[in-house]
Amino acid sequence: MKSSIRKLLKPSQRPFGLENPFCFSFKEAPIKSHVRLLLASALTAVAGLAFSTQSLAQTDPLPSWNDGPTKQAIVNFVQTTTERSSTGFVPPEERIATFDQDGTLWVEHPIYTQVLYCLDRVPTVVKKKPELAKVEPFKTVLSGDREAIAKLSKNDLFKILDATLTGMSVDEFNAEVKKWLETARNSRWKQPYTKLTYLPMIELLKYLRANGYRTYIVTGGGQDFVREYSEEVYGIPPEQVVGTMGGTKYGYDKEGKSFLTKEPKLLLNDDDAGKPEGIHLMIGRRPYAAFGNSTGDRQMLEYTKAGDGARLAMLVFHDDAEREYAYGPAQGLPDTKVGIFSQELYDEAKKDGWIVISMKNDWKRILRLRELTRSFYVHSVVISESRPWWTN
Amino acid sequence: MKSSIRKLLKPSQRPFGLENPFCFSFKEAPIKSHVRLLLASALTAVAGLAFSTQSLAQTDPLPSWNDGPTKQAIVNFVQTTTERSSTGFVPPEERIATFDQDGTLWVEHPIYTQVLYCLDRVPTVVKKKPELAKVEPFKTVLSGDREAIAKLSKNDLFKILDATLTGMSVDEFNAEVKKWLETARNSRWKQPYTKLTYLPMIELLKYLRANGYRTYIVTGGGQDFVREYSEEVYGIPPEQVVGTMGGTKYGYDKEGKSFLTKEPKLLLNDDDAGKPEGIHLMIGRRPYAAFGNSTGDRQMLEYTKAGDGARLAMLVFHDDAEREYAYGPAQGLPDTKVGIFSQELYDEAKKDGWIVISMKNDWKRILRLRELTRSFYVHSVVISESRPWWTN
Repeated sequence: MKSSIRKLLKPSQRPFGLENPFCFSFKEAPIKSHVRLLLASALTAVAGLAFSTQSLAQTDPLPSWNDGPTKQAIVNFVQTTTERSSTGFVPPEERIATFDQDGTLWVEHPIYTQVLYCLDRVPTVVKKKPELAKVEPFKTVLSGDREAIAKLSKNDLFKILDATLTGMSVDEFNAEVKKWLETARNSRWKQPYTKLTYLPMIELLKYLRANGYRTYIVTGGGQDFVREYSEEVYGIPPEQVVGTMGGTKYGYDKEGKSFLTKEPKLLLNDDDAGKPEGIHLMIGRRPYAAFGNSTGDRQMLEYTKAGDGARLAMLVFHDDAEREYAYGPAQGLPDTKVGIFSQELYDEAKKDGWIVISMKNDWKRILRLRELTRSFYVHSVVISESRPWWTN
Repeated sequence: MKSSIRKLLKPSQRPFGLENPFCFSFKEAPIKSHVRLLLASALTAVAGLAFSTQSLAQTDPLPSWNDGPTKQAIVNFVQTTTERSSTGFVPPEERIATFDQDGTLWVEHPIYTQVLYCLDRVPTVVKKKPELAKVEPFKTVLSGDREAIAKLSKNDLFKILDATLTGMSVDEFNAEVKKWLETARNSRWKQPYTKLTYLPMIELLKYLRANGYRTYIVTGGGQDFVREYSEEVYGIPPEQVVGTMGGTKYGYDKEGKSFLTKEPKLLLNDDDAGKPEGIHLMIGRRPYAAFGNSTGDRQMLEYTKAGDGARLAMLVFHDDAEREYAYGPAQGLPDTKVGIFSQELYDEAKKDGWIVISMKNDWKRILRLRELTRSFYVHSVVISESRPWWTN
């Protein structure tokens, strides 16, 4: 983790305008009301055109994937398991697909988003419990000394996680996460973290769901944390999020109304072997397809492939330093402490018929960023008639 | 538990023929093939007639419920939460209804079905581990001394649960439960336990689902045990069963294939306060409706009612000694150790606007038994053309 925190503190600083030219020009000058209306009309037409193009292009459910064996393997799997005449046909109720989150559905470098949340929460926690200000590791986090923060031990990190993720009611926690997600910005793309999802994977989620699969997140991240945005960001409802699980404690407030408090009690560490264990606990069925990107996903993919019939196991390989990040250490890529893809994992994948997705070669586009922005833009102007976002 | 085991051992022995006259007469004499065909034709006609009557009666989604405030409360709740114009409208994704199982969806007296399963499993467990034959409580269970078995302590019972519910692979456990459910018979009704469900509650499950609710079981029983039949019996898939949760352990067999072993490690006791905690863990949303029948369901109902808007909380009250059982000790009914409905719970229900369902007064019919049998019968004769069940 140490090296990752260090990376975080020296981020590359790309201007957002390069990612989204629309945004850049509109931001430059104030736009008067009637011009806005005119623009809205024009854009409605453009949107209409876009929709027609979309319906023409419906034959390709994975437009952000380059043609090739990786994309073909996905399409073959879906056809094999959903066509009634196929020997590999899977009844709809058994169609389960599980997705790791960090590094598989959204950016995990230079450091896991939830860890950033926890570091950001430290001042608030200390405000409520001033005695912590003089205690490590809180003292170091509060000092703002980036070098020192980067050197915190794993044990220190757990203390921070405990202090910032437990001890409050479930409702309070949810509200805090929601607020943070709205205001926090990634240092490289200057965007909310929820926009740093991978467009090809979002297409894959939708494609599987359109074919009767229920998509689950199976993450080493906190179950409650991910649930706060999974529906909006991935179309995955809270009950389909399997994560690292902490206990809660039932109690009553002063008015006798019941509520749950988040406890510093680990029920299941949903990583490595904990992933199939968590899948059994929360779903009770073996997945037919599983997607990951690091050694923490190995057992989930093994467990998936150990089932009968057609099963799909895929690993996202971060080999695109230019458009995202490159890390392994498999295939000679730089080593990392966040989302390790070891050579051993790479070899097991090749040996056992898992498919390694090369971000560089298999994905036309990586981040969903632009799409989300445009869709929100069309929504705000045309549908809800609220002020377009660039005037905020 | 002691008194319950005693009850179990001296069950009342009603002839099944009283419950199902069809069955009785057909069982009496062998029926030749052409007679069977003739019968099949006649019954197809009868079935057709039944279907027409059904479609005429479709205006009442709860035909086994007597008209009155209890039934009306259910209908009002569904209308309030599903009509778009209503102030209490609940978006479909948030429509969650949770049901206790033992005593709420199926018969729990004289003793929980899963405990019977565990007692029945003891000989097989001892066969695999002969050293247990001389160790208590296994020695007593093997002795067949009913008086002695009935006197086993709670601690002894836990030893039996551990020995019979853990230590095998998940797949082995599932196969064992399945086999037992097919062969075991309830001593009073002489039927598989899965047929001893309450018809009015099955109608309620279907009614809620038809109105966009996702129905969950939230039981103190073992999560894996209930999952084995929940889909077939209640139409509730395994991923919607929240129960007492044990840990599993990931491992590999001799061929290197991965599998999960059931461990004697309690993750969550899904009873009392454990119910809302289990609901948060597994669903992550607060239910809009919750149904129980004993003190173990109190916190689930409190948690449900503590939410905003229209919420429904109901308790099944076993006050029908003739058609099922009568136990409280609320309202002066006999005390019990299985499914306690205390006067305190009764008072809380009345005070907080929970609805107590009187089995005696609110339900026209209690057991689903006959329906299931007839539906299976029509299915086997008319549709699948397999041998009708009475010839087995």
